[in-house]
Amino acid sequence: MNLTLLTDFYELTMMQGYFKNNANDTVIFDAFYRTNPSGSGYSITAGLDQVIDYVKNLRFTDEDISYLESLRLFDADFLDYLRNFRFSGDIYAVPEGTVVFPREPLVKVIAPIMEAQLVETAILTIINHQSLIATKASRVVYAAKGEGVMEFGLRRAQGPDAGIYGARAAVIGGCIGTSNVLAGQLFDVPVRGTHAHSWIMSFPDEYTAFKKYAELYPNPCILLVDTYDTLKSGVPNAIKVFTEMREAGIPLDYYGIRLDSGDLAYLSKKAKKMLDAAGFPDAVISASSDLDEYLIDSLKTQGATISSWGVGTNLITSKDCPAFGGVYKLAAVQNDLGVFMPKIKLSENTEKITNPGNKKIFRIYEKESGKIKADLITLADETFSEEDPLLLFDPIETWKKTLLQPGTYTMRELLVPVFLKGECVYTSPKVMDIRDYCQRELDTLWDETRRLVNPHKVYVDLSKELHKIKSELLDQMS
Amino acid sequence: MNLTLLTDFYELTMMQGYFKNNANDTVIFDAFYRTNPSGSGYSITAGLDQVIDYVKNLRFTDEDISYLESLRLFDADFLDYLRNFRFSGDIYAVPEGTVVFPREPLVKVIAPIMEAQLVETAILTIINHQSLIATKASRVVYAAKGEGVMEFGLRRAQGPDAGIYGARAAVIGGCIGTSNVLAGQLFDVPVRGTHAHSWIMSFPDEYTAFKKYAELYPNPCILLVDTYDTLKSGVPNAIKVFTEMREAGIPLDYYGIRLDSGDLAYLSKKAKKMLDAAGFPDAVISASSDLDEYLIDSLKTQGATISSWGVGTNLITSKDCPAFGGVYKLAAVQNDLGVFMPKIKLSENTEKITNPGNKKIFRIYEKESGKIKADLITLADETFSEEDPLLLFDPIETWKKTLLQPGTYTMRELLVPVFLKGECVYTSPKVMDIRDYCQRELDTLWDETRRLVNPHKVYVDLSKELHKIKSELLDQMS
Repeated sequence: MNLTLLTDFYELTMMQGYFKNNANDTVIFDAFYRTNPSGSGYSITAGLDQVIDYVKNLRFTDEDISYLESLRLFDADFLDYLRNFRFSGDIYAVPEGTVVFPREPLVKVIAPIMEAQLVETAILTIINHQSLIATKASRVVYAAKGEGVMEFGLRRAQGPDAGIYGARAAVIGGCIGTSNVLAGQLFDVPVRGTHAHSWIMSFPDEYTAFKKYAELYPNPCILLVDTYDTLKSGVPNAIKVFTEMREAGIPLDYYGIRLDSGDLAYLSKKAKKMLDAAGFPDAVISASSDLDEYLIDSLKTQGATISSWGVGTNLITSKDCPAFGGVYKLAAVQNDLGVFMPKIKLSENTEKITNPGNKKIFRIYEKESGKIKADLITLADETFSEEDPLLLFDPIETWKKTLLQPGTYTMRELLVPVFLKGECVYTSPKVMDIRDYCQRELDTLWDETRRLVNPHKVYVDLSKELHKIKSELLDQMS
Repeated sequence: MNLTLLTDFYELTMMQGYFKNNANDTVIFDAFYRTNPSGSGYSITAGLDQVIDYVKNLRFTDEDISYLESLRLFDADFLDYLRNFRFSGDIYAVPEGTVVFPREPLVKVIAPIMEAQLVETAILTIINHQSLIATKASRVVYAAKGEGVMEFGLRRAQGPDAGIYGARAAVIGGCIGTSNVLAGQLFDVPVRGTHAHSWIMSFPDEYTAFKKYAELYPNPCILLVDTYDTLKSGVPNAIKVFTEMREAGIPLDYYGIRLDSGDLAYLSKKAKKMLDAAGFPDAVISASSDLDEYLIDSLKTQGATISSWGVGTNLITSKDCPAFGGVYKLAAVQNDLGVFMPKIKLSENTEKITNPGNKKIFRIYEKESGKIKADLITLADETFSEEDPLLLFDPIETWKKTLLQPGTYTMRELLVPVFLKGECVYTSPKVMDIRDYCQRELDTLWDETRRLVNPHKVYVDLSKELHKIKSELLDQMS
């Protein structure tokens, strides 16, 4: 589908406004967010590859032009301009799978304002969605403490794309695979699944249903045991089938049961005892019933004997926080001399005041541990050397300072060029490679920042230069 | 995009299982839900037109087959079967925009089990999503008490489809339009929008930005007043521009301001006073800041002078309840004699036990008021006459009974044929016509059922025949 019209109407009315006023200065917009979702101490950025596709394919078709014409608000000269519209600007972005924090530009668009304005909505839609789900997935996977988490939520996703790209983001965030076959095909990620209650119900009895399933799929062989009665019928029938498989010499490599309802702590412990007693101590007990990071954490605390997790609704919708809240704000306008003049958006809420100017982001690591010390937003033309001491200070409570000595820290820049003069200069890694990168990224967080509740906050500071410009602009406007 | 692989992997493993076992009996599956979202007293069903497109276009392409082959789980004979796969069954559904209640089949699929199984996931994804948003929209529109509500949430939607089909569903539920241009184009629904903060910030000052905007778009002319300071700068500058327009003889038909931050109750009342004092009593005050049905209701209680509402994140994600929870359960299997044998899914939770058999739904209205009295789920071959008394009884607490006398009630059937023997026999109305129908549907609810908190529950009863079959099955299985 051509997504060129996937934009808010006001982007087009503003575009015509700029067109009519000959006001197509080059500007800088930052896409950033203000609060980590679900009370998280960090977020994972995702969706860049879909943003790239979107920008590459920006074209107003004849149908699009006719449609806009039919609205009787756009003049012929503007519509002619749209006919030849191409994105000609620069885009910098933080690569997918990176750990990010509030107020950091995840995407920076430098383009004539008509172009930069048009792409606002779709960039936000895509980045907001996938970053939300990648972040949620990383939390769920964290709760599972190294045990595999499958993304199972397609049927509860907010439409097909939410299922497809949500599965992609979930894998980036750490899921080992998805039930969504189309996502598997599109992104070359593992797909898995066994059978539903309807499989059991379509046979005369549960044992026959298990038996037939195991004959066809001996490895892996995970049997869903809660159609009739988990402990009285499901687990005994599964044990009967596993016993017959063993007697027939069929190797039992990856086999076990799936619990999909009821008290998972109680049922898993009871089922484990029954499987152990029958000589199946290595049977996998998987679970999939309204799980999220908190419930998995609680089940582990209760000693549930579950070692494989299928997470649906709560992951694919990020149910406790279903929107990421990314915004897209004007940061600078180029003047006639080609200089970017910083712009600021005021707010009564200090946290909502934007960071002006053309910026970049440095991540500062503690050298010894490789863990994140802080992030530093600076002007794009500032340079730093790890050979120098680095002063960090809180951008609001500026008396809070830290001086990092050379040799104790390392730094790297987060924003990379994606489009330059309208040409794509970036190749997205494969999704499973992004996933690996994301795991390494998550390892740079202290445990205190990863914890699910009340995580330790990572500081995002401003350079002295950027802080000065911001303060001056605020002074001028008040 | 070809959505044939938009399915859970287990649908395909089960399909191969049925294929290998020569077990392709015709079955009946019901898609229904158990709880209204957001504490609502009802839901609005939506998404059928997209289900129709999906089913019509079900085809495994060569790429799909190659992909499935690459998974090394599917045999050549089964893949050959998929190559020629077409949906050959019947589908009945409740038309879009209809008021519905828990446990009613919104979609009923009658097809060979391999086909009925494949379509499960996509049907649920589509119906769950759009019904969720249509329901949420109807609540937000209800809170606005006849004032226009615009859908503004694209940038916070869970991916492009969530924005596109979410806008469609929001209009079905009662929104007067959307900011989403692509949704406007695809579904012929009104699109609207004005300008963003970036428009204001890209001009030297707020007054110039307003002036330029008003020159280009004098009607409608809604100016966003909160970029710098709403009451000190935004509203006075807007008044200055409106005054100049009036002096220049430009008709002020639909004009006013938009508030996008701050205390909307306070700001709207203050702004109203300023506009009134300047001779603009008919200026529209619109608002768009994290609104939902509860906040709109509260603003009205506080006497806010807002008469136009833009609702974003909380509507497009149904933020307080972002999943509809529809399920798809086996209700009957045809035996060798062509008779549908009812099937039931047990659960420890009585509410979760499914209704067996081939069913239809009657809506019972109080004749005098035209309001909904109750719904009645019956077997498909049962007949009823409005000339007879009608006995309704609670399906769990069966001693709770009501006898409706002829002349006091009317009834209509809700499920309509959509596919018969694989052929589509249904034409979806236009979205704006579905919206009109939905408004009429909502008028059949008592106010007590529409209210936002603790609504009165509408009873969904079972016919005597259906109740008997269900009881017998439960007895057999326990």
